[in-house]
Amino acid sequence: MRVHGKAYRTIWETEDGGGTVTIIDQCRLPHEFVTLDLATSGEAAAAIRDMRVRGAGLIGATASYGVALAARESGGNPDFIARAAESLVATRPTAVNLAGAVNRQLEAMSDAATAGERIAIAYRTARSTADEDADWCRRIGGHGLELIRRIAADKDGGPVNILTHCNAGWLAFVDHGSATAPIYAAHDAGIPVHVWVDETRPRAQGAKLTAWELGCHGVPHTLVADNTGGHLMQHGMVDLVIVGTDRTTRTGDVANKIGTYLKALAARDNGVPFYVALPSSSFDWNLRDGLREIPIEQRGADEVKYAEGWHDGRLTEVLLAPASTPAANYGFDVTPARLVTGFITERGCCAADQASILSLFPEHA
Amino acid sequence: MRVHGKAYRTIWETEDGGGTVTIIDQCRLPHEFVTLDLATSGEAAAAIRDMRVRGAGLIGATASYGVALAARESGGNPDFIARAAESLVATRPTAVNLAGAVNRQLEAMSDAATAGERIAIAYRTARSTADEDADWCRRIGGHGLELIRRIAADKDGGPVNILTHCNAGWLAFVDHGSATAPIYAAHDAGIPVHVWVDETRPRAQGAKLTAWELGCHGVPHTLVADNTGGHLMQHGMVDLVIVGTDRTTRTGDVANKIGTYLKALAARDNGVPFYVALPSSSFDWNLRDGLREIPIEQRGADEVKYAEGWHDGRLTEVLLAPASTPAANYGFDVTPARLVTGFITERGCCAADQASILSLFPEHA
Repeated sequence: MRVHGKAYRTIWETEDGGGTVTIIDQCRLPHEFVTLDLATSGEAAAAIRDMRVRGAGLIGATASYGVALAARESGGNPDFIARAAESLVATRPTAVNLAGAVNRQLEAMSDAATAGERIAIAYRTARSTADEDADWCRRIGGHGLELIRRIAADKDGGPVNILTHCNAGWLAFVDHGSATAPIYAAHDAGIPVHVWVDETRPRAQGAKLTAWELGCHGVPHTLVADNTGGHLMQHGMVDLVIVGTDRTTRTGDVANKIGTYLKALAARDNGVPFYVALPSSSFDWNLRDGLREIPIEQRGADEVKYAEGWHDGRLTEVLLAPASTPAANYGFDVTPARLVTGFITERGCCAADQASILSLFPEHA
Repeated sequence: MRVHGKAYRTIWETEDGGGTVTIIDQCRLPHEFVTLDLATSGEAAAAIRDMRVRGAGLIGATASYGVALAARESGGNPDFIARAAESLVATRPTAVNLAGAVNRQLEAMSDAATAGERIAIAYRTARSTADEDADWCRRIGGHGLELIRRIAADKDGGPVNILTHCNAGWLAFVDHGSATAPIYAAHDAGIPVHVWVDETRPRAQGAKLTAWELGCHGVPHTLVADNTGGHLMQHGMVDLVIVGTDRTTRTGDVANKIGTYLKALAARDNGVPFYVALPSSSFDWNLRDGLREIPIEQRGADEVKYAEGWHDGRLTEVLLAPASTPAANYGFDVTPARLVTGFITERGCCAADQASILSLFPEHA
C-alpha cells in the first residue's frame, strides 16, 4: 500500500541482491517511518520478538526469510538452519503462520542435494510465502468487498461503519491486510466506508498502526478507546465488525488480540455481523477446541503499567499506575465460533463451522 | 480510608473553620498526594469539570459544598446561588448525584428567612450529604460482605477473584466507595480477596486510582488492560464482578464508565455474577429506559489520542496516534438491567428489576 505516495510492502529483499531483507520498523510508527535491514536469522527472530514486525502474515513471511537468512549465513548448514528454525518458532507462541512458514521452509529444503541448492530453495520459498500472502490478502479484499457492497445497498448513500480491533491491516501482512483488505477494496471502489479503530491496549496497535495506515490511504476513520465498541453498537453506529486472527481452529474458534471476544459478544447482543478475515495460512487444521488448545501468550507487565507514545520529538514511556502495582498481560483471547458470523478467506466467505470451512478447503477434510 | 497510615476522606472542611473546603487532587494520583483548597463555587465547579474530584458520590458532595461556597461568597444572595447551582449541574451531564445534591441544597435553603440562615443551612446540608454518602457506602460494604462470604465458602480457602472497572472506590465517594466497600469489608474480615483492576482507558482511573487505593489498604490486586476481562472469565479466573454506577434507572439500567457493558456481556456469557454497588442517591427515579434516556457525556478527543502518566518526575502526556487522527470519546455506556445480577445498596441487595428495587425503596413507588 502507499506511504507518502510510494507503494510499499512490509518486507522485501534489499536491492543490493545479497540476500539481506528490509522491513519497516513498526515500533517507530506512526511517529517515524524507518526501515531496518535484517542480515541474519538472529536479527529476524529479534525483529519478531521485539514486535518490529507483527501480525499473522508478516510474522510468517519474516520467519520464512529468517530461515533463508540462516541458510545464507551458515553456508547452507542443515544443523544451523534447524536451530535457527527452532528459535524463530519460539518467538511468538500464538501465531500459527509462524510455525507454518518455518515448516514449509524445512520441507522445501529437505529436497536439496547441495548446500547451495538449499540456500536457493530457502530464498525461493520465502519469496513464494510473501507473494502468496499478498495475493491471498488481495483476494480476501475482493470477497469482502461484495459483503460491504450488500450492506451499503441498505444505507442510502451513508457510509458503512466498520469496527476493527488491533491491526489486521497491510502492516500485519505483506500487503493489503486481512481485516482491512475489504475496507481498502470498498474505499477504492467508491463505496463510502468509515472505520471505528479500537485503540487496542496495551500496545495500542489500533491507535498507532491501523489509524496510521487508514490515514495514509485516505480512508475515513475515528479512533476510540477499547471500551467503546459496545456503546457504538447499542446505538446503531456499527454496521459490521471485521477483525483478523492469529490462529483459527478447523471448527472456527478464533484466537485474536485480547479484547476481540468482548467485541464479538457486543456484536451478537446487538445483531451486528461479526466477520473474521483470514488467509488460510491462519487456520490451524490440527485444532478443534480453541479455548482449550490455543496457547495464549503472556507478555511483560510493563506493557500494561506504561503507555508508550511521542513526546518532545521522541518515543517516551509514561507510568500509568503506582510503580509497585502488579499487572498481568494476556496477549490474545479466543472468540468461540458460535459468536462468529462468518470468515472471509482467499477462496471466499463461509460460515464459522467445520463443515462450511472444509467446503472451502476440502484438502484439509 | 488510610493513606500513608492516616485516615482520610476525599473532601472535608478546612480546619480554619472559615468555610473553605479541601479535596485530594485526584489528577495528581497515584504519583503525588496533593490536597487542594476550594474557596469559591467556581473553584468547586472547576474541580468537578477538570476531574480533580470525580465519581458519583464525591461529585455530589463537592457540588453540595459548591453551593455552600456560593452562599458564603455572595453573602447568601439567592440569585448568585441559583446561577452557581446551574453552573455546577452543567459540569458533568451523566452523574445523577450531582443534580440531586444541588437540588437538595436549593430545597433546604428555600426555608431560610435570612441570608445568614441561608449560609448556615447550606453548610449543614453539605455536611449531611457528605456524612450520608460515607455512611451509605459503609452499609453497602456490610451487605456486599455477605455476598463475598457466600462465594468464599465454595472456594476452599482460595481468594475470591473480583473484577472491577474504573474507580468506584473511596476516592469516588466521601469514604469506603461503592464497588470497593464490600471488598474492603471482606479483606478487613479476613476473607481472602483478589481484585482484577481494569485500566479503564482513556483516563485510566483503574490504573491510577483503584490500583493506588487498593495498594494503600493492602488488598491483593492485579492491573489488566480493559480488553482482558472476557479472557479471565472464560478461564474461571473471576468469581464476581462489582462495579459502580453514575446513574441507574428505576428499572435497573446502569450507566457507568464506558466499557462496563462489555464486562457485563462477558459475565453473562460465562455465568459470572455481575453486581452493581450503589447508594440510593445514584438511582434516577424519573427514568425507565437507560439506553434512551440517560445522557452520555462526550469528552475531548485528546484523552483518547494521548496517555498521561509519570515520566522524569512529572506528569507527561504522550501522543499514541498520528497527530491528525480523529478520535471520539464517549464517557459512559448503559448496561441493560437484563445483564445485571443484582444491586448492593445501603439498604441491602436486590435483583435488577423495578419491583425488587422498589421493595427496598418503597418511598419511590
